[in-house]
Amino acid sequence: MGSTFGQAFRITTFGESHGGGVGVVIDGCPPKVEISREAIQLELDRRRPGQSKITTPRNEADQCEILSGMIDGVTLGTPIAIMVRNKDQRSQDYGDMEKKYRPSHADATYDAKYGIRAVAGGGRSSARETIGRVAAGAIAKQILTDFANTEVIAYVKRIKDLEGTVDPATVTMAQVESNIVRCPDGEAAERMVELIQQMSKEGDSIGGVIECVVRNCPVGLGEPVFDKLEADLAKAVMSLPATKGFEIGSGFAGTLMRGSEHNDAFYMEGDRVRTVTNRSGGIQGGISNGEFITLRIAFKPTATIRKEQDTVTNEGETVTLAAKGRHDPCVLPRAVPMVEAMVALVLCDHLLRQRAQCGDGFLGASHE
Amino acid sequence: MGSTFGQAFRITTFGESHGGGVGVVIDGCPPKVEISREAIQLELDRRRPGQSKITTPRNEADQCEILSGMIDGVTLGTPIAIMVRNKDQRSQDYGDMEKKYRPSHADATYDAKYGIRAVAGGGRSSARETIGRVAAGAIAKQILTDFANTEVIAYVKRIKDLEGTVDPATVTMAQVESNIVRCPDGEAAERMVELIQQMSKEGDSIGGVIECVVRNCPVGLGEPVFDKLEADLAKAVMSLPATKGFEIGSGFAGTLMRGSEHNDAFYMEGDRVRTVTNRSGGIQGGISNGEFITLRIAFKPTATIRKEQDTVTNEGETVTLAAKGRHDPCVLPRAVPMVEAMVALVLCDHLLRQRAQCGDGFLGASHE
Amino acid sequence: MGSTFGQAFRITTFGESHGGGVGVVIDGCPPKVEISREAIQLELDRRRPGQSKITTPRNEADQCEILSGMIDGVTLGTPIAIMVRNKDQRSQDYGDMEKKYRPSHADATYDAKYGIRAVAGGGRSSARETIGRVAAGAIAKQILTDFANTEVIAYVKRIKDLEGTVDPATVTMAQVESNIVRCPDGEAAERMVELIQQMSKEGDSIGGVIECVVRNCPVGLGEPVFDKLEADLAKAVMSLPATKGFEIGSGFAGTLMRGSEHNDAFYMEGDRVRTVTNRSGGIQGGISNGEFITLRIAFKPTATIRKEQDTVTNEGETVTLAAKGRHDPCVLPRAVPMVEAMVALVLCDHLLRQRAQCGDGFLGASHE
Amino acid sequence: MGSTFGQAFRITTFGESHGGGVGVVIDGCPPKVEISREAIQLELDRRRPGQSKITTPRNEADQCEILSGMIDGVTLGTPIAIMVRNKDQRSQDYGDMEKKYRPSHADATYDAKYGIRAVAGGGRSSARETIGRVAAGAIAKQILTDFANTEVIAYVKRIKDLEGTVDPATVTMAQVESNIVRCPDGEAAERMVELIQQMSKEGDSIGGVIECVVRNCPVGLGEPVFDKLEADLAKAVMSLPATKGFEIGSGFAGTLMRGSEHNDAFYMEGDRVRTVTNRSGGIQGGISNGEFITLRIAFKPTATIRKEQDTVTNEGETVTLAAKGRHDPCVLPRAVPMVEAMVALVLCDHLLRQRAQCGDGFLGASHE
Repeated sequence: MGSTFGQAFRITTFGESHGGGVGVVIDGCPPKVEISREAIQLELDRRRPGQSKITTPRNEADQCEILSGMIDGVTLGTPIAIMVRNKDQRSQDYGDMEKKYRPSHADATYDAKYGIRAVAGGGRSSARETIGRVAAGAIAKQILTDFANTEVIAYVKRIKDLEGTVDPATVTMAQVESNIVRCPDGEAAERMVELIQQMSKEGDSIGGVIECVVRNCPVGLGEPVFDKLEADLAKAVMSLPATKGFEIGSGFAGTLMRGSEHNDAFYMEGDRVRTVTNRSGGIQGGISNGEFITLRIAFKPTATIRKEQDTVTNEGETVTLAAKGRHDPCVLPRAVPMVEAMVALVLCDHLLRQRAQCGDGFLGASHE
Repeated sequence: MGSTFGQAFRITTFGESHGGGVGVVIDGCPPKVEISREAIQLELDRRRPGQSKITTPRNEADQCEILSGMIDGVTLGTPIAIMVRNKDQRSQDYGDMEKKYRPSHADATYDAKYGIRAVAGGGRSSARETIGRVAAGAIAKQILTDFANTEVIAYVKRIKDLEGTVDPATVTMAQVESNIVRCPDGEAAERMVELIQQMSKEGDSIGGVIECVVRNCPVGLGEPVFDKLEADLAKAVMSLPATKGFEIGSGFAGTLMRGSEHNDAFYMEGDRVRTVTNRSGGIQGGISNGEFITLRIAFKPTATIRKEQDTVTNEGETVTLAAKGRHDPCVLPRAVPMVEAMVALVLCDHLLRQRAQCGDGFLGASHE
Repeated sequence: MGSTFGQAFRITTFGESHGGGVGVVIDGCPPKVEISREAIQLELDRRRPGQSKITTPRNEADQCEILSGMIDGVTLGTPIAIMVRNKDQRSQDYGDMEKKYRPSHADATYDAKYGIRAVAGGGRSSARETIGRVAAGAIAKQILTDFANTEVIAYVKRIKDLEGTVDPATVTMAQVESNIVRCPDGEAAERMVELIQQMSKEGDSIGGVIECVVRNCPVGLGEPVFDKLEADLAKAVMSLPATKGFEIGSGFAGTLMRGSEHNDAFYMEGDRVRTVTNRSGGIQGGISNGEFITLRIAFKPTATIRKEQDTVTNEGETVTLAAKGRHDPCVLPRAVPMVEAMVALVLCDHLLRQRAQCGDGFLGASHE
Repeated sequence: MGSTFGQAFRITTFGESHGGGVGVVIDGCPPKVEISREAIQLELDRRRPGQSKITTPRNEADQCEILSGMIDGVTLGTPIAIMVRNKDQRSQDYGDMEKKYRPSHADATYDAKYGIRAVAGGGRSSARETIGRVAAGAIAKQILTDFANTEVIAYVKRIKDLEGTVDPATVTMAQVESNIVRCPDGEAAERMVELIQQMSKEGDSIGGVIECVVRNCPVGLGEPVFDKLEADLAKAVMSLPATKGFEIGSGFAGTLMRGSEHNDAFYMEGDRVRTVTNRSGGIQGGISNGEFITLRIAFKPTATIRKEQDTVTNEGETVTLAAKGRHDPCVLPRAVPMVEAMVALVLCDHLLRQRAQCGDGFLGASHE
């Protein structure tokens, strides 16, 4: 009972990794938004397995079907249901894992919570569930573009200890997509790819940090005191698989500064209130101020590895497990579109909520 | 429109820093929970201003009144309304800030969002709003104790670069309350107090990190895929004023490890599934596994400082501001009970949600 | 856990009939709405006990205090908390009823559900709870007036078998308030007053039907498929104490007609689509069409009567009960402002929801 | 934005009458509930068009596919998605209605609200949307049976002025299904069928009243003050297409009685509190008391008829319309399973909500 996200732009995902399929229902989408099935598919292609040599070879085309809520590429204002069939299923790979709990995976807790579990492929805890999020995120992005020219761009900032140099102010989607690891710093990207491949060879895995920037965000989004914009962003990305940490603006590093260093001085740019620095990360008092929103998310190393590990079975036996199946040695390259989707969903939801309470008047007030 | 938190144990806070008062309505509280007004007041006393030499001297007794939902110290199952009157108001202190936007504060964004603002004391964006959260948190804590013997303990882990040594497995509330900065490492605490006082003298401010541990958490709390336990915890604490970052378990440091290092191997302790290490921070797949839940929150340095800063007025004039009024040079000592409250509210909400879907059977299944 | 109503304009009520007080928190109210405390009090005065010779003599001034969310009679966009203290409490009147369940009252079911109950005055099940609804409704009415010139007028249509003749198209608030029973048909009203007084003398009670008309409702309110406008109206009024039935437009009588008789033919009035008849009651497909919205609500005779009745105690003894205390022989005169409040709350909520999804453009599109 | 219903047992429907398909996602379903696809299909077969000579000849097999949330006929506790493909589509039948608004149908209001509309078959406003509700209702019914042996039975009580004689205490599902009009009074049913066929011949339509009884409902369901059981039931059934009125227990007729006649005297049956009469309809103070829950719903005559009617086009021209396409002359026979579904969904939701707040202890406390 936690498969719905958002209040005014509300999505509900469904589906296990094996079974009929996975998908999403979007309720509250404004009518007359133009978006093609291909634009949605494009985002799913960025997420799909088997897209490159550093992702799982599970080969799913992940072709989406729009079941409702649109006609001829235009939204109707009614619920949009999007479905992707499960295809390349190898349940036999999971034979061993039917009984053996994968360390740091959801196997044991799902059993404890529900007393039953879809064993193959991780069931509901599979990253395959994020297909629905990414499809919905594609529509949210379109709305942000249409309504406020708002851009959401995520990228790999760090893989283990290999950090890229990226300027949030200028980074482009083309740069992100220019390599398979999705780090806009091409030189760092090469080393990242090598490291991931090395891990794969060793049957091990690694994690890292994804950074996301929102540009042209309207001023005024965020609903204090609980639904502050950074709070909803934190929840959104921390609901993605494998996340361990979240930062907005100055983050943990900001705790080492004094107030007089950390505060963002105001100045006027024409009739607009701007800040000289942006340690606030585009959000003050829980409300967007029109500056870049910047956030970072920590992703742990993939839990499922081929290396042998100590574990137990669902019947309490002590055993070892060397996982079979096809798994990503590093989730970050495929997590980039997931982060963008979640951030876009939050912004779109808050755009509509702000419109409900305060009217249309505020739109277009972003700074950049 | 974001003043409600929780689904099954649901709180709604109200109130500005100046005006009739602040408070909370709690809906969904189980009937027949015993808790005295004094127990609630105790938590409010830990939060109240003027409690020590390192907090704002604004002197509010913050005495709470229970308006409904209880009789003779027992809950009725009906909404519990708790109110605290505003008393020690010095609106004149805000004369200067009526027009001048405080850098990195919510003044400018509230004006932009709503087109109107309660100027005195920060209005709704004041930390005074957290009174309602802390009062509700006291009841949530009582429920956690009664239903599952679950403990929630937060403490100051770091002030600026001064870090305390604390063992989450053994730390006690008495240790936390043994000094005014609420760091259980007494020696570090002394240096923290000195540093905060130094900042106060200089008209500046500092931030730091609060750590929180949950012991004896029942197995099975958390509602994938969006309302994962860590996602709701992240939202809960990131909705507190001045927060910039969140970590669960291994956090950002975990991104530097390999999967084979990071994974928590399983073993059996009697008939219970345990983990050797706890990098997961007590949550796997979004669901509590019965190990300690550990989380850390970054708090920025207080925005309102006496040092002169560049800013603008609500009419677009460029000015400087040296804030008057009585403000905390460091929010962390008073934020400790706020963090405990938010964490307890999340756990209590998930306890009731788990009970709705899966029944009473699961309770009492924690490990420690 | 059912004390919150509305999605975009959301109210949470609290309070028992005896105790600190009753009230409401309103979240999502647009900023800069002008409404005085007196305007809210006016509605509470229409609801308060002791207002006339045909209501309970319990004498409560029911003076409201606005605790938050407004400054100088203008809303801030933050939660508005309104409280009324309980004053004229005679708990001793309930001595007998502490153990004896009042037939057709909530005593027994509250005990069964919660295992505990605020005995005096009916506790949470008291009509006193509706104070919060009426206060919030006053603000909702103001918003409807300001945003769309929408009027909500309810009145007593029938008391037992005494029916008034009222034209929904022209009835005015002044007519409703011209007599103590709130039936705009003065001649019928006199006979109704007599009948109520007769019942009071006999220690008995009566019910009847309240009708409500909404004029100038914007076209487009209502959110299919579950939150259709008539569905939310039905829930809203059926949540009032003592209600047993709901009709929209043609209601039950409409089931006796053929489609060709019942359908509302369309015609053009300038550039507006109008209907010749209005059996739809202003709503088609769950969405307002700009015609009058008309609804009727059945109220049962008051459960608490002085006549002796058979009942049991909370310990299972068979007894008789002749209720003491001060109770209305007929709830309808005081229920009129409650109905208006609930209808206004639904419309206001849907106005904001429509604005969220479809923007400001639609406003002002009503027909009359 | 109104396609989600329920809080703890929450359904979201999607789909237009023409397009990829229609369906539902159910979130919050308890794990380990056993229900076959066939049991769900059985309810859909009771709802499907073309099932008898008195329904629309549109011939849809309406075969459902379970996409997720179940394995081998057992629920997993994860979201259950169920889909039905649209098959027998004759969009050409709607050529005329693309521009001409059907009187008393949703065509005009959808255009006004969203500015766009799926013309063929009524789009989202088609009764086809209720497929998702009925599928979800089948699962809700199973849960009610398994958890509390609660039965939900609806039947046609009246068609136009032809009323059947039915005893809610003893009526069986077999009796309801013994004839095509679903009125357990066989003699009345025959006359009803004749009347419906007569209307069909004349190109006209009729309505009537459906009654529903709930037997063995646990004591304690319902969440005052807004989510009272009768309030949620009212909303649930009033969200069905073509409904104009709702009654619980004594309904509108109860307003003609005195309190001393209307009140349900209590007596003891063993250790259980029972009522002699049941004018309350099984609900007191918004909470079930264990007696039969009885409710009645008014359905208007079908709006779409073949008889010529005055109307306008979406471009404002005055025209006449004689509807083509295949439409039910009377919706009631097919609405019976819809009413059962909505009532079961409300009860199931409240069962889980009661369990959240008050625990498992209360279950099994019904009277019959």
